[in-house]
Amino acid sequence: MKRFFEASSVAVIGVSPSPTNLGRAIVYNLVQFRFPGIVYPVGPKGGAFMGHKIYKSVLEIPDPVDLAVILTPALTIPEVLRQCGEKGINRAVVESSGFSEFADERKSLEEEILEVAKKYNIRFVGPNGIGLINLENGLSVPFMPFEFEYPLGKVAILAQSGGIGACMLNALAFENIGFSKFVSMGNKLNVSENDLLEYLLREDKSTETIFIYLEGIADGRRLMELASRSEKPIIIYKSNYTRASSGIAKSHSASLSSDKRVVDAAFKQVGVFKAESIRESVDLIKAFELRPMDGNRLAVISRSGGHAVVAADAASHYGFELVPFPQSLIRLVEEHSRAGVIRPQNPLDLGDLFELDLYKEILDMTLEREDVDGVCFIHNYQGVFESEQSRELAREIGPLMQKHGKPLAFCLFTSNKEMAINRKACSVPIFGDPWEAIRALHVMHNFSKRKVAPFVADFKSGIGTPRALKLVSDYSPKKRGMQLPPELCFQILASYGIKTAEWCVSESPEEIVSAAEKFGYPVVLKTASRDVVHKSEAGGVMLNIGDKIALLEAVADIQSRFGPKVLIQKQVIGGIEVFVGSSRDENFGPTMLFGLGGIFVELFQDISRRIAPLSPRVAMEMIDETRAGKLLKGFRSQEEADIEACVDMMVRLSYLVCDLGQLSEVDLNPVKIATGQEKGAIVVDCRMLWA
Amino acid sequence: MKRFFEASSVAVIGVSPSPTNLGRAIVYNLVQFRFPGIVYPVGPKGGAFMGHKIYKSVLEIPDPVDLAVILTPALTIPEVLRQCGEKGINRAVVESSGFSEFADERKSLEEEILEVAKKYNIRFVGPNGIGLINLENGLSVPFMPFEFEYPLGKVAILAQSGGIGACMLNALAFENIGFSKFVSMGNKLNVSENDLLEYLLREDKSTETIFIYLEGIADGRRLMELASRSEKPIIIYKSNYTRASSGIAKSHSASLSSDKRVVDAAFKQVGVFKAESIRESVDLIKAFELRPMDGNRLAVISRSGGHAVVAADAASHYGFELVPFPQSLIRLVEEHSRAGVIRPQNPLDLGDLFELDLYKEILDMTLEREDVDGVCFIHNYQGVFESEQSRELAREIGPLMQKHGKPLAFCLFTSNKEMAINRKACSVPIFGDPWEAIRALHVMHNFSKRKVAPFVADFKSGIGTPRALKLVSDYSPKKRGMQLPPELCFQILASYGIKTAEWCVSESPEEIVSAAEKFGYPVVLKTASRDVVHKSEAGGVMLNIGDKIALLEAVADIQSRFGPKVLIQKQVIGGIEVFVGSSRDENFGPTMLFGLGGIFVELFQDISRRIAPLSPRVAMEMIDETRAGKLLKGFRSQEEADIEACVDMMVRLSYLVCDLGQLSEVDLNPVKIATGQEKGAIVVDCRMLWA
Repeated sequence: MKRFFEASSVAVIGVSPSPTNLGRAIVYNLVQFRFPGIVYPVGPKGGAFMGHKIYKSVLEIPDPVDLAVILTPALTIPEVLRQCGEKGINRAVVESSGFSEFADERKSLEEEILEVAKKYNIRFVGPNGIGLINLENGLSVPFMPFEFEYPLGKVAILAQSGGIGACMLNALAFENIGFSKFVSMGNKLNVSENDLLEYLLREDKSTETIFIYLEGIADGRRLMELASRSEKPIIIYKSNYTRASSGIAKSHSASLSSDKRVVDAAFKQVGVFKAESIRESVDLIKAFELRPMDGNRLAVISRSGGHAVVAADAASHYGFELVPFPQSLIRLVEEHSRAGVIRPQNPLDLGDLFELDLYKEILDMTLEREDVDGVCFIHNYQGVFESEQSRELAREIGPLMQKHGKPLAFCLFTSNKEMAINRKACSVPIFGDPWEAIRALHVMHNFSKRKVAPFVADFKSGIGTPRALKLVSDYSPKKRGMQLPPELCFQILASYGIKTAEWCVSESPEEIVSAAEKFGYPVVLKTASRDVVHKSEAGGVMLNIGDKIALLEAVADIQSRFGPKVLIQKQVIGGIEVFVGSSRDENFGPTMLFGLGGIFVELFQDISRRIAPLSPRVAMEMIDETRAGKLLKGFRSQEEADIEACVDMMVRLSYLVCDLGQLSEVDLNPVKIATGQEKGAIVVDCRMLWA
Repeated sequence: MKRFFEASSVAVIGVSPSPTNLGRAIVYNLVQFRFPGIVYPVGPKGGAFMGHKIYKSVLEIPDPVDLAVILTPALTIPEVLRQCGEKGINRAVVESSGFSEFADERKSLEEEILEVAKKYNIRFVGPNGIGLINLENGLSVPFMPFEFEYPLGKVAILAQSGGIGACMLNALAFENIGFSKFVSMGNKLNVSENDLLEYLLREDKSTETIFIYLEGIADGRRLMELASRSEKPIIIYKSNYTRASSGIAKSHSASLSSDKRVVDAAFKQVGVFKAESIRESVDLIKAFELRPMDGNRLAVISRSGGHAVVAADAASHYGFELVPFPQSLIRLVEEHSRAGVIRPQNPLDLGDLFELDLYKEILDMTLEREDVDGVCFIHNYQGVFESEQSRELAREIGPLMQKHGKPLAFCLFTSNKEMAINRKACSVPIFGDPWEAIRALHVMHNFSKRKVAPFVADFKSGIGTPRALKLVSDYSPKKRGMQLPPELCFQILASYGIKTAEWCVSESPEEIVSAAEKFGYPVVLKTASRDVVHKSEAGGVMLNIGDKIALLEAVADIQSRFGPKVLIQKQVIGGIEVFVGSSRDENFGPTMLFGLGGIFVELFQDISRRIAPLSPRVAMEMIDETRAGKLLKGFRSQEEADIEACVDMMVRLSYLVCDLGQLSEVDLNPVKIATGQEKGAIVVDCRMLWA
């Protein structure tokens, strides 16, 4: 990827002397952003632009070329790329549109391009993007002209939409936040977010924060693997979750929509910071301009009482501890305040202190304290008086943060004229709402606490695989989406060490009775017919069968209604019912679910999700996220359940679904988790679907 | 209140020629904002300021004065106010601080001021605020100097914090949104938000939207009554909910914190739009600069595909229907697009249409359509080209909305230089994120649907009052917060027509048995000792007593452990268990609660709230808000419950708690709502606390 960003000679293919030609803007941008390398415009009509000769083909260029930027009609791309290959160019940015986002028939054109690229060993960005910018060397190749007004910084922007990418650049410039690299990824036919992410994480020293806007996900598991090993913060805004957006996203970037719940779970699992809107994207990027916050002890210093009240609500909301200010500082402040009394509380209200040069000293003293992990400072002035002193104060914020290595979130309220001046003067972002500032500190506290185990994209446990594969390979479903027969489900579970209620499948009443005598009454009888999907609803389940006579009656009844094959199980008494499940996602492969069993799963939607495989720690997180978890821990003087057994079962099932790709869905529901002195977790009922 | 805002002569009390004197800023502001009336500076030292003579006392002013603005030390206020009274001034703005927000001992000073005000019939704003502004006549009396840069508009701002008030003025000016009136209410000792609200709603024709920032609530029920009858949108940002904020709010505006859940419920009940931060306050005010949206059919027109995708997600999230564009429009667009193909879908992506003058026509045609209730238009340009055309387009947005009377939410993405120019040029707000724009449309759709029944602050039903009052007056609790004995609870409920499970309280086993024979077995036996608070947890409840022998055993057991008085009840079989309750709030009086019964109330916190009295419609809303409601309606093929009976009981209990102010808490838990063919709602257990 490096060679995309460090090219020192660029061929811009698709330039003509016509004033409506868009390729000219690419040349214009390179000049505007002061690209120090050589630019070769290329276009079949020849001519000249901005003093450059327009070559009729890349093959005519006399010198070697590092990068080709291509903006010619879609149908010409295979030939143009071929010429690049012949010329020895093996990095390209294809900005043309008219591919699969335009019409499904263009899929073959995409395949043709991929073949050419493969033959000549070409990697290319796009098609259907607006290009890329490396602000460090002025390599700026979008086909829309940009003003060169962006500060250089540490944020990389990868966007699957040129429009959103550009609006992020403008939004960051407004906040005086610089960027390092920008890539409009378009259809991601050859270079994906994962390729770029890998480069930014491992090779690009000038990038410290990565923001990605996605409409579709190239390979969710690889993304997770990369993110789980990243020490740089990754912020992703993923759109395109709904039926309404799927149409427009397909015709915009040829992206397929995804299940938001799964994407959210995956991001959480590997410590990706998720944005839900453009504004929230900017908020998160602003947060990462602060320092990590190592503890949760916060000091709030405000010149306005009202903003202090708001900040205190926000601090409580985000779980910060507001540590008291020391007497020495209170005394200092009191001595200089007009009415002579400052309340010794946190938030500290400096409304009565008119000597603004003291503010810096107070901030310095507060950041110095060992019992303070971060500071929120709120200043306001109306802008008719106090402007010079206030601007001076704003300039000190960045250096103070630098000096102490702790986050200092700065809110400023003043006239709009003053605001604009301060935004340029202040080297760190200015927040416009105490909630925003304190949320940013919360993000930086979470970032500091972030501990993510490496996620393995290609995981195979192998625990029960040979036996399970044998079981599965003997099974030939009539069609995709079929349910596996219960006895097969139970055997597969057993091969992964997952305990089920003792069971027996048979057509013979005698065998059923002898199984019951072996298990002990009460027992449960179910139809084992593979044609009945919702057994309970259909009346195919009978509980609490207490003796032989009742059992024989039940067998006769179920057999007469659903056919001869029945399943008998020991009835599990006591315990808390939970639900452990898995389903396969197109972007992320096997996912895991956990929640309360029975009707409440659906009524309360109290379900947590992660991507398989699970570590015990991640399984525990899943339990902790739900109300079911509270119940397992002994809610309201109830007995605690064997959570360890529950975790163990979840981990085992996650291995199972990684190993057996043929299973599209597994529901263990209910699972009974023993409570009190009893130990263990037992699957009572199970459903598996064939992919 | 009118006389505060329409004063034509103002005495500014507390002016001195000293350069650090804050009173001078008040005179400065009146001049700066071009107040056309007469200004009389007053200060004991005399002298002159800005060409005005400084009178030594108001009594020296030769002419009558409409309004006094006072900024003198707190302890002087009674005398200053007395002089105002003698002078015949009966409207004042007290900007001084140093009252109960400063020290509890200053409560008596406040009382003294109130007495003076009463004697002279003076109404005053404050103390401890920064003053008020009427932008229409330039009456601007804050003691901090303001630049006169605010556009005149239709939004009134009432703020209990000068700092937050001023920051709202700046934030609105940034968005080019004008305001009409501004009041910094301070401690609200005499004039409360309710007084001002009443004026703004009933008398002030120039105000169309009201924004209020509150740290404490003066009289929640009066606020609700006013809001429930308002046709103007009221947006309230209430802070100060937490232990962390209560200290600072007390010393800032002498406000007590409140229960957020109750405030939220009250606002929802009367159609107040709630903001949770400064940013959200601005967002909501921006929304009300649009038109009401009468239906939910939305058209999204975007120049950027990415923003269209984001807008589609947002539209789905807020439940908008994206209606297809007609062929005629698609054809028009196709004819003019560069590549010749625009997808006929909503959102409509105009990325390929470079003739910007057509955009206005497309918007006009779309707003004209009968099947479109509102439009979100997203434009972007980078600002090097297309600036003139784009600014022209921005200027057209306001007139287009005006012409069609439908909301047109306009998002713009461009360079920051262009953004600033367009903000000034465009007469309606510009949104910076499709989510923001579509949320604003959602707000305007809700506003259009808003139907609120008038709320009665002083409600007395009188249904069961004489009998209930008699019952209660016979009861003499040992102390506040005592539980009423169960038989009294059941009798009070009965007097309001609320059904309870048949019961009998006695000390005699024979009487208990004969009651049981009357009710029929099974029965429940409970201790009726008033000393046992949590009967179940203490083992004071025995269920499922099936016959006389078991009953006698149970009676003996309970009597031996808890004393002779026991309660027997018929055991109610079947039905769904819910919880109906009430508690008294300091700001809002009796509140009502509803949720699922049993352990799940607490595990899932699935509780809805409103302020009593309830209409059947509001009770139904409470049920609908909870998962318990889903269960009552027959979740997952279960039988439907008698929701009407549940509503009836909720309404009756809400009347009861309005009538009987002595009850601080009432819990009916569980209440059994009959299902299927069975009808009715029966209270099984009940707890009432004495206030």
